[in-house]
Amino acid sequence: MKIEFQPIGVIHTPFKKTEGMPIQPPGASGVKGTAEVFEEYRAGLKDLDGFSHIVLLYHFHRSRGFNLHVVPFMDSKTRGLFSTRAPKRPNPIGLSVVRLDRIDGGVLHIRNVDILDGTPLLDIKPYVPDFDAPAEVRLGWLEEARKTVSNRKSDERFK
Amino acid sequence: MKIEFQPIGVIHTPFKKTEGMPIQPPGASGVKGTAEVFEEYRAGLKDLDGFSHIVLLYHFHRSRGFNLHVVPFMDSKTRGLFSTRAPKRPNPIGLSVVRLDRIDGGVLHIRNVDILDGTPLLDIKPYVPDFDAPAEVRLGWLEEARKTVSNRKSDERFK
Repeated sequence: MKIEFQPIGVIHTPFKKTEGMPIQPPGASGVKGTAEVFEEYRAGLKDLDGFSHIVLLYHFHRSRGFNLHVVPFMDSKTRGLFSTRAPKRPNPIGLSVVRLDRIDGGVLHIRNVDILDGTPLLDIKPYVPDFDAPAEVRLGWLEEARKTVSNRKSDERFK
Repeated sequence: MKIEFQPIGVIHTPFKKTEGMPIQPPGASGVKGTAEVFEEYRAGLKDLDGFSHIVLLYHFHRSRGFNLHVVPFMDSKTRGLFSTRAPKRPNPIGLSVVRLDRIDGGVLHIRNVDILDGTPLLDIKPYVPDFDAPAEVRLGWLEEARKTVSNRKSDERFK
């Protein structure tokens, strides 16, 4: 079974290549970018400016193939792919919760952006803690690693 | 540009039809289901059992077409589609943060499941508050509506 999607827009950021990119929004604090929504979908942006944060789903368009075991940027051990956020996945869909500063026409001005320039945008959803943020969580291998994530940068391993 | 994905598994839940389904995980508190990961991807589940919560991305496979303006289940006014979590979207990708109780082989036992039975699974990511849960948020039209979400059920409008 094949499932087909088409971009609804494109994400622009200061990151022109994967090396040296921040890992996840905490490492991209303050980094600004835009999500340009194509003309035909812009009517769907109504009311979105009331939300301070939005969920972007996008296509890791530079990702080719995948390994089910990977060494994540934030660790030195081999981990199961689905316990990581590595971009090379069977279905390379990226998810970032970013801050929405304002909307100009079809352009969303966003902040805390850990996304590669030119990334095809697949969907925008309002970020709602009641839906998306359970209260008590356990973090497996990331429990230790998370303390250092904001200082780590991407390298070429997931190119 | 077409982007093609293939299911990595299938989600099983008590919800055989869209009418009467809970809306979002708060309305599905305690509801149990499973996410069955296909054999060829199971090696990627290593280490996932350390996480109490996971992000499931899936295909709203019953969704046909979309409107850019919708009346959400939680409101009585017309809202821009991207300010809602309505399943009929240009790219019908669903996102749920669910509790992971345990993993048996390739079967994830999950809780707080607001997903239709038979839904094709596209991706699994560990839920990490540092990445996914910003601290101070503003909720637009949902600010009021969120107070009642756990009591609301789906109806046929997004069939």
